[in-house]
Amino acid sequence: MASSEGNKLWGGRFVGNADPILEKFNASISYDQRLWEVDIKGSKAYVKALQKAGLVTQNEMEQILTGLDKVFDEWSKGEFKIKPGDEDIHTANERRLKEFIGDPAGKLHTGRSRNDQVATDARLWLRDAITTLKELALQLISTMVERAAVEIEILCPGYTHMQRAQPIRWSHWILSGAIAGNPFNIDRELLRQAEFLFWGSMCLTHLSKMAEDLILYSTKEFSFITLTDAYSTGSSLMPQKKNADSLELIRSKAGRVFGRCAGFLMTLKGLPSTYNKDLQEDKEAMFDTYDTVHAVLQVATGVISTLKVNQPAMEGALSPDMLATDLAYYLVRKGMPFREAHSCAGKAVYIAESKNIHLSKLTVEDLQTVSPLFDKDVSSVWDYTKSVEQYSAPGGTARSSVTAQIEHFRTWLQAQKQ
Amino acid sequence: MASSEGNKLWGGRFVGNADPILEKFNASISYDQRLWEVDIKGSKAYVKALQKAGLVTQNEMEQILTGLDKVFDEWSKGEFKIKPGDEDIHTANERRLKEFIGDPAGKLHTGRSRNDQVATDARLWLRDAITTLKELALQLISTMVERAAVEIEILCPGYTHMQRAQPIRWSHWILSGAIAGNPFNIDRELLRQAEFLFWGSMCLTHLSKMAEDLILYSTKEFSFITLTDAYSTGSSLMPQKKNADSLELIRSKAGRVFGRCAGFLMTLKGLPSTYNKDLQEDKEAMFDTYDTVHAVLQVATGVISTLKVNQPAMEGALSPDMLATDLAYYLVRKGMPFREAHSCAGKAVYIAESKNIHLSKLTVEDLQTVSPLFDKDVSSVWDYTKSVEQYSAPGGTARSSVTAQIEHFRTWLQAQKQ
Amino acid sequence: MASSEGNKLWGGRFVGNADPILEKFNASISYDQRLWEVDIKGSKAYVKALQKAGLVTQNEMEQILTGLDKVFDEWSKGEFKIKPGDEDIHTANERRLKEFIGDPAGKLHTGRSRNDQVATDARLWLRDAITTLKELALQLISTMVERAAVEIEILCPGYTHMQRAQPIRWSHWILSGAIAGNPFNIDRELLRQAEFLFWGSMCLTHLSKMAEDLILYSTKEFSFITLTDAYSTGSSLMPQKKNADSLELIRSKAGRVFGRCAGFLMTLKGLPSTYNKDLQEDKEAMFDTYDTVHAVLQVATGVISTLKVNQPAMEGALSPDMLATDLAYYLVRKGMPFREAHSCAGKAVYIAESKNIHLSKLTVEDLQTVSPLFDKDVSSVWDYTKSVEQYSAPGGTARSSVTAQIEHFRTWLQAQKQ
Amino acid sequence: MASSEGNKLWGGRFVGNADPILEKFNASISYDQRLWEVDIKGSKAYVKALQKAGLVTQNEMEQILTGLDKVFDEWSKGEFKIKPGDEDIHTANERRLKEFIGDPAGKLHTGRSRNDQVATDARLWLRDAITTLKELALQLISTMVERAAVEIEILCPGYTHMQRAQPIRWSHWILSGAIAGNPFNIDRELLRQAEFLFWGSMCLTHLSKMAEDLILYSTKEFSFITLTDAYSTGSSLMPQKKNADSLELIRSKAGRVFGRCAGFLMTLKGLPSTYNKDLQEDKEAMFDTYDTVHAVLQVATGVISTLKVNQPAMEGALSPDMLATDLAYYLVRKGMPFREAHSCAGKAVYIAESKNIHLSKLTVEDLQTVSPLFDKDVSSVWDYTKSVEQYSAPGGTARSSVTAQIEHFRTWLQAQKQ
Repeated sequence: MASSEGNKLWGGRFVGNADPILEKFNASISYDQRLWEVDIKGSKAYVKALQKAGLVTQNEMEQILTGLDKVFDEWSKGEFKIKPGDEDIHTANERRLKEFIGDPAGKLHTGRSRNDQVATDARLWLRDAITTLKELALQLISTMVERAAVEIEILCPGYTHMQRAQPIRWSHWILSGAIAGNPFNIDRELLRQAEFLFWGSMCLTHLSKMAEDLILYSTKEFSFITLTDAYSTGSSLMPQKKNADSLELIRSKAGRVFGRCAGFLMTLKGLPSTYNKDLQEDKEAMFDTYDTVHAVLQVATGVISTLKVNQPAMEGALSPDMLATDLAYYLVRKGMPFREAHSCAGKAVYIAESKNIHLSKLTVEDLQTVSPLFDKDVSSVWDYTKSVEQYSAPGGTARSSVTAQIEHFRTWLQAQKQ
Repeated sequence: MASSEGNKLWGGRFVGNADPILEKFNASISYDQRLWEVDIKGSKAYVKALQKAGLVTQNEMEQILTGLDKVFDEWSKGEFKIKPGDEDIHTANERRLKEFIGDPAGKLHTGRSRNDQVATDARLWLRDAITTLKELALQLISTMVERAAVEIEILCPGYTHMQRAQPIRWSHWILSGAIAGNPFNIDRELLRQAEFLFWGSMCLTHLSKMAEDLILYSTKEFSFITLTDAYSTGSSLMPQKKNADSLELIRSKAGRVFGRCAGFLMTLKGLPSTYNKDLQEDKEAMFDTYDTVHAVLQVATGVISTLKVNQPAMEGALSPDMLATDLAYYLVRKGMPFREAHSCAGKAVYIAESKNIHLSKLTVEDLQTVSPLFDKDVSSVWDYTKSVEQYSAPGGTARSSVTAQIEHFRTWLQAQKQ
Repeated sequence: MASSEGNKLWGGRFVGNADPILEKFNASISYDQRLWEVDIKGSKAYVKALQKAGLVTQNEMEQILTGLDKVFDEWSKGEFKIKPGDEDIHTANERRLKEFIGDPAGKLHTGRSRNDQVATDARLWLRDAITTLKELALQLISTMVERAAVEIEILCPGYTHMQRAQPIRWSHWILSGAIAGNPFNIDRELLRQAEFLFWGSMCLTHLSKMAEDLILYSTKEFSFITLTDAYSTGSSLMPQKKNADSLELIRSKAGRVFGRCAGFLMTLKGLPSTYNKDLQEDKEAMFDTYDTVHAVLQVATGVISTLKVNQPAMEGALSPDMLATDLAYYLVRKGMPFREAHSCAGKAVYIAESKNIHLSKLTVEDLQTVSPLFDKDVSSVWDYTKSVEQYSAPGGTARSSVTAQIEHFRTWLQAQKQ
Repeated sequence: MASSEGNKLWGGRFVGNADPILEKFNASISYDQRLWEVDIKGSKAYVKALQKAGLVTQNEMEQILTGLDKVFDEWSKGEFKIKPGDEDIHTANERRLKEFIGDPAGKLHTGRSRNDQVATDARLWLRDAITTLKELALQLISTMVERAAVEIEILCPGYTHMQRAQPIRWSHWILSGAIAGNPFNIDRELLRQAEFLFWGSMCLTHLSKMAEDLILYSTKEFSFITLTDAYSTGSSLMPQKKNADSLELIRSKAGRVFGRCAGFLMTLKGLPSTYNKDLQEDKEAMFDTYDTVHAVLQVATGVISTLKVNQPAMEGALSPDMLATDLAYYLVRKGMPFREAHSCAGKAVYIAESKNIHLSKLTVEDLQTVSPLFDKDVSSVWDYTKSVEQYSAPGGTARSSVTAQIEHFRTWLQAQKQ
């Protein structure tokens, strides 16, 4: 690692210099520092879990907790200094923690990827954010209600199409924005329809991602799956081709449906209350969304149920370097902090690449140049099934975890039918 | 009504001819005929309610129900013929009903505006639509689960950033699309964030409509309300002006936040599963949405709590023609079907306009040229407060209804605080 | 003006305090300070024009130019300090200029509204921005071209639908991303179609604004215009109503068409190059955009050609306070700097409001309490036609200016036909 | 080809049945039949080009032109019958042509892929569409101008922020929608800014597609390119990984910038004319778009200039079946119509797949079971460089064509610098 690279987490293997424009583009610290509080909260909860699981000692946990409190203090007082290598809030907090407590800081991230941490922070932040906004919304509603109570005797015109329609109470406008006798009705329906369009968009966006995976897997290069003829088409020009049209159509429809949602919200924006002819736009959007989701779900079901899996190609795509994390865990089990172990595994990968051999073909001697903790038993690492089986927590890749998920879904599906 | 106009519902007063391009543009029958079934269902439920309320007789109700069944039959068999004057599904069904059963058909719409009917139909249709799509989604999930069960032994690479990362089970991909050990996590968070952005968009779209109303009401021409100085600003060029900047900012922010939502969904679309750096876009969108909604809610609360209502201007904007519907109901109470009464009231409006006098200034003799059912007691119609008080159903404009809504909101607000 | 209000430009009349949240929400200085350079450039050009027009003296111009150079220097060196009252970059620069040179600073904005200044700054900034981005784009293209030149011998598969199709040169991919034999064709067409969808969106967004104006003008409260029956419809419930449906439909379609544009771009995003079935989405978007714009343009033409203008209502909406700017110019003509004159006119408006009389009804004595420069000849200010006639620059409201615009358009229209 | 499959163009190799829902989903005939006229026009032009190139005889050309005229006639008279197998307008027209003139119809598509045809039809249609819309826009403008000329004496209030500002001429509103003295200025700037945001969106959408290609090419499975360390990053969890973050960031930014564009247009939609505070939203959108495009262009330049091409992997991905089109052209050169040749090549692919050998390993005897026209000289087909060299038209893959493109770009780049 070039020393100029600072303390970037992947350490251990890069030799070039990064493009400074990319660095800036890549870095999120300018805005995600806002997560400092939930990031520390999340890390405190995580280290306690690690201690319970026996992955850090009581003493290490206490050092980490104390260190995190110091980091918290600095942020609270506006004294935390962001340094050049701090590309995001997580790196920044961890860098500072290490400055406070040294090596044990490296253990904080055992078995937790950056992406896990980002997702946790976002969840915690969003929970607080929603609570705050809800309170503000209640204040607005309360203001409206009390004002309506006081001014109940004032009459004014009710408008539809911005034309005077019938007399209403001013309080009635405050409470509903809806014309006499049908309170909320129109706006409620509009909200429900807009939600339907958005639900359709989310559903198809999710399926667009699944379709993208399967399109990739069906390329000649991956060859993981083959679509049946019923879900692929040939080419009018190139007789050898078999295109994954069905998946491409699924992928494309997220755009279409979201366009409907975007168009309808744009139509709604800034409309005066009550009925305006503009609202006529809702029906075609609703029907088109329905028809599109209706077809996509069925085509997706057909594709998933009929595609052929090419097991040898899938398993042939596994390679020993995919077990580098297992190699790091091997060192963790021998007592090395995770960050250091990760760096050692990175060096091993680099050596294997330099020698142009598979990672699993490094000798114990090769590995010992990286860390003296490597021993003969490292050979046990090179087993894909064993690797998969070690993730037996809920949602993991172990056979038992996957089976549990299957059972969970079956039960849930059964419940939906009743 | 000019005979060339067909059976358009507003009848009675238009003399010019419509622009045929506008007619086509305006008409929704080309797509909303799809609502035929729920429209008939809704009408059947409505006529039963009218009978219970004593607004149609048992006999009339039975004629209408039988007639609606005949209309239903024609649609089912593909024999329903759309005619030139049928501008939407509601007009079409009612026109056909009238052909089957004559005058009683006109009673079906007593006290139900077209917009109510459209909203009801949309609600019924959407309910069925969601049920169907849910079943199809369950079939897709079920297919995935069973496939995962069968192919549990197949291993394949897990990818992040489209680079091979760790070995996973193929079933694991099927079930989650997420990388080993953290099932759903990422996608769950993404969905939650996207929903947050959309919720922000909906919330601000709703407030953009309220802001638009208040901007209108604060024009010199309306003069219904005045913003306090704290929520308005002057002009750098024109010293007499007082602009509703606060409301314009509220109105503008729906666009901003929805842009964030649109941008994030576009970023998500078609991404391969698991983590990709593209997802880094989520944070700024989330923060900006939070900050914007946070400010808008408070400014809106401030505006609503401090604006001054100009009661004389509001009540000065009430005019007798706004009681034309009450005039129609006067005739309904004397036994005339609603559609006919509506047409009579339209003629009265037309006569008043021709004479350039207020509707309330027509003599009983004038009114009797329209219908012999008009009598001296028609003078009781010209009372705005009485008009408002007749809508005492939940959500109506009667003092009691508005008070009930206020109480409802107060109770609800109280419940939110606990 | 409460002293706590700082140097906000509208001065002279506000008595309440602003909501601090609104202030922050309203202020743009946090991001528009980026315009500092073009703002100063624009002001320098403007003061030179004022001097040519005889509105500032040579000496005043020189003071202003020197002062602006000092402001420029501070920004260049990062020494400019933003103060609490600086709500945008224009206020900030002007405040600083006044600190440097005193009263003459007030003359800089004679006849230039804030909105003019904002628009000019944006135009200057955008011109520079586009130049810079163009240079960067050329660098990218140049890199691609030279790389293609060097690596012309390398063959690789051409893909369509992400399936291997035909062999191509790697240079061919670099240059076009298009499959053998049809370079650019597909992407060119996609770009052209996307531009068409966007052009449609812009066109209808523009018309949505015109429609909004006309909807307002057709309310009972404004009563400036009346749509003919051919472009309005009645209400199924309220016989007296005449709705501006045609304008509401025009207003709504901007959303629809932009939804198509948004949907299509989302579909395109992240697609691999060459043909993918996703692109099938283009046709419906293109057709729907065409049909919608086609109908909207015709309906808009019909509305504009047939609406009736209510001249008395329009002219009745003119009131003496709309001549407050003319009152300020009266003082400017007597030698007062514009900012001071604006403040005096503001005070006059405030006095008239306090007395509850029209601005034009203030006596010369009333006005002299504001400034001794007021004299009997102030009565000449209260003439709407004279007011309109003074703006005779190109694009102004003088009869001659409007006539010149009409002639300009007629010539242009004639040229389009050939 | 199973007879139940109708006359789908890819013929020759599919054995399963298509999912009828997919068929409907896939088919575009329901809307693209609208292209019937331009499709026939395009085909007439194409067959003339084929005749000039000696690929069809004078006699064949005349048969085809006459046949196309008959198809045209049927559409004009509303007598064209769409049949079940007609999945798009191109298939439909060709099917009908074949019914009219038999075999020569098959020659119409020599060297023209479906995608070429679709692109040509879209271009022709769009050209006509734009002409029509332009005429309608001119009519609208003309109506406005003439109305402004007639009503020049009418005065009305000019509004900013929907508050009365200064008196203007009604004609002034008609002509510009802008406030006194600064005609068009604001709207012109808004249009320019909106166009800038859209240009940014299109530019980044284009680059998102290039990034997607390169992300694919950098997967282990493709291994066509390797990013330098300066443009990739490691993984915090998996030491062996090297992620294409730079490309993922490029891909993601299309969403971000388009979100800005969408948000701004939504803000503009339905705003009254002249200045409203809503317009303050423009600056942040403009700045963010600039910064994002500014960074993306530079990162893209860096990536393209430094990535390493893995020539053996690229050329290793070429396989004989990618020459199946060349095999078809071999038969075309021996006199077979293209459609028939395409079908024969498809059968050859099928035989090779059944035998599990490369297409190039089929013996002449094998090939002769498909067509007696195959002979020994077929071996000349199996040469990738030769295949690439045959596309020497402008934009083709021949060395000379690519070189010409490079020269074209160099000249163009040189011209930009002056």
